Amino acid sequence: MKAALIAVGNEVLFGDTVNTNAAFLAAQLTQSGVEVVRQAVVPDALADVAASIHDALAAADLVVLIGGLGPTVDDLTRQALALATDRPLHEDGAALAEIEGYFRERRRPMPVSNRQQALVPEGGQLLPNQRGTAPGLWLEVDGRVLVALPGPPIELEPMFQEAVLPRLLPRLGGGRRVIWVRTSGIGESSLQELLGDLLTTANPSLLPYAKLGEVHLRILADGKSQEAADQAAQGLLEAVRSRIAAYIYGLGDLTLEEVILRRLGARAQTVAVAESASGGLVSERLSAVAGASRVFLGGTVVYTAGAKARWAGLDPELLSREGPVSAFTASHLALAVRRELGASWGVATCGWAGPEADGEIGLAYTAVAGEDGVACREHRLGRNRYDIRHRLAQAALWQLYQTLGEES
Amino acid sequence: MKAALIAVGNEVLFGDTVNTNAAFLAAQLTQSGVEVVRQAVVPDALADVAASIHDALAAADLVVLIGGLGPTVDDLTRQALALATDRPLHEDGAALAEIEGYFRERRRPMPVSNRQQALVPEGGQLLPNQRGTAPGLWLEVDGRVLVALPGPPIELEPMFQEAVLPRLLPRLGGGRRVIWVRTSGIGESSLQELLGDLLTTANPSLLPYAKLGEVHLRILADGKSQEAADQAAQGLLEAVRSRIAAYIYGLGDLTLEEVILRRLGARAQTVAVAESASGGLVSERLSAVAGASRVFLGGTVVYTAGAKARWAGLDPELLSREGPVSAFTASHLALAVRRELGASWGVATCGWAGPEADGEIGLAYTAVAGEDGVACREHRLGRNRYDIRHRLAQAALWQLYQTLGEES
Repeated sequence: MKAALIAVGNEVLFGDTVNTNAAFLAAQLTQSGVEVVRQAVVPDALADVAASIHDALAAADLVVLIGGLGPTVDDLTRQALALATDRPLHEDGAALAEIEGYFRERRRPMPVSNRQQALVPEGGQLLPNQRGTAPGLWLEVDGRVLVALPGPPIELEPMFQEAVLPRLLPRLGGGRRVIWVRTSGIGESSLQELLGDLLTTANPSLLPYAKLGEVHLRILADGKSQEAADQAAQGLLEAVRSRIAAYIYGLGDLTLEEVILRRLGARAQTVAVAESASGGLVSERLSAVAGASRVFLGGTVVYTAGAKARWAGLDPELLSREGPVSAFTASHLALAVRRELGASWGVATCGWAGPEADGEIGLAYTAVAGEDGVACREHRLGRNRYDIRHRLAQAALWQLYQTLGEES
Repeated sequence: MKAALIAVGNEVLFGDTVNTNAAFLAAQLTQSGVEVVRQAVVPDALADVAASIHDALAAADLVVLIGGLGPTVDDLTRQALALATDRPLHEDGAALAEIEGYFRERRRPMPVSNRQQALVPEGGQLLPNQRGTAPGLWLEVDGRVLVALPGPPIELEPMFQEAVLPRLLPRLGGGRRVIWVRTSGIGESSLQELLGDLLTTANPSLLPYAKLGEVHLRILADGKSQEAADQAAQGLLEAVRSRIAAYIYGLGDLTLEEVILRRLGARAQTVAVAESASGGLVSERLSAVAGASRVFLGGTVVYTAGAKARWAGLDPELLSREGPVSAFTASHLALAVRRELGASWGVATCGWAGPEADGEIGLAYTAVAGEDGVACREHRLGRNRYDIRHRLAQAALWQLYQTLGEES
């Protein structure tokens, strides 16, 4: 299968927005065995979009349009699809009801302009949008597929993975199995050294994707049948496990914080968090998980000496003597927050995030307190404020995860 | 002048590399008054590159090729330019000497393959590369300009700014001004209704970009001189201000939290935050700003009744009677956190983020406490947990911003 991508919109065309959507889709398609043969960016103009669809259909079996599905007069992707494929547009009653519901829930009147988001070219199907009002479109014409996705990555990415990819895969033939392996606590280069030759095989294949503080590994196996693909993927997974088991926290798409909350929930345990340099990131990640309040009790952001005194009972003079960024401070914070909320576990962070600091930028500590006492780790997390804060939150969660693991 | 951009290479096409070069060039050209009419990404294949040059020349006066100037057999941009414009390739003696010099300086032997980097289509000029071996190309054909630039941004960006832009500007004339206007507290559709006809003018133009909880407006003016462009942009800004002044928190690229921290810093005031449903997001946004610790004292994440009792002195029975999601609770939290840390301002949130809840999902409250007492706002923020939490954090910061504004 050959694919062409068309990004619609002056925002990308004029360079206000980097076209990360195209890179995301191209990578996803390439990984699925689809050959991307061209990408284009075209203006918010009906004739241009329609012409680009026309050109793309001459070169590809799959055309993916990005953006132009909003409610304004500039949003012309629906109309261009209809024009290029010579299909009339109809209003979809179910889609209109869903858009109306979106506004009703928010107790806002629906602007008339949003009505056009319910238009569908004849024969097309709407793809539901969990995060916005613009549904996507799936349209088959003479054995070829046209897909339109909304421009915001937060809407586009789940729609592609949940609604588009599953419909494409059966068309690609044979069997295919993808397994995601999630790791933390180890850098990409060290991981590559441990995995060695496993990274060089073509099928099943193993590909690392580095995130901030995590590396995700994708196992991809193609086979003549689904069973053959499953077996090949499973075999590679076992080989991966035998080399890096200590760094794997899960398979699939559960995040580290979700794994932690589930494990705590299963043990009827709870956690409280005291953050200095990470400034709320650990609490934010834990509380982002649905149902977190059964396990995550709360926490403090003890950003200043005053806050550390007030909520962790840390005497300012002692704090100043031991240092606000020290194993002492991190341990004290973890113990205090655990005690304050009567939690099973207390987690704490401190560090110098810069750009100005009274200590070595990037030096940071995490601590985890439990019924057997407190353990502390020292970290060096680079020079960039953003990276330091996010790596520090990751290090705290990873320490908690490992502590839970060792304990069971 | 109209421009088309063509990125050459499988790396971009298959999504291994995000096409930041196109965004850089498009933004530079747009700011210089050149209209970018299309962008394309094509594979490393001679016929495809040549065909895309041919197509681009039909739509644009300026065609910029990105990449494909390296020494390998995959680097075909020079050959494609020659093919598409029907000009033979010659070896440029001066260019060859420069490439040879590059290797001599580094005391490395020159691979034979690098010799092709000295090839120039007849009538073309080489553009010097300060950072690599691949010179760029400038070629004029029938009054149109073709430019080829190397792919690494570190080579492309200075070459464009030092060798290409100065040759283009005399052909352009006139001036251009861009002003970004940042708003919050109002949705995109309502904003569009207030702005009405201002959104339909071509020059100066006004374009909205919706973010989660914010809308950014771009004013773009072209004029016969820089002064004329400045005046036109300023005139439109005044018109925008006259309609939506209450929702504008800044011009340019400062974030809402940066504006708040600067304003507080200038008044030598401080802020503390107590978060329930937003779970640390407000603290996280404030502490993400460099230098935050002079103004942001810290906060609590009072996710559970236990935490609300411990850190806000909220009696569980009273909390249960008034409701954990209520104006009472938000106000109490804001007052308590302000008092606990002795801050100028206390900010608080509570809400039902779902998916399971003992109340109406999306219902939420923000409160801001100051020396004159506390004010509370009620919100309805949709059904999606992610959106609710982020919109709630935005609403809290917006309430604080507005409170600071009214007070001065």
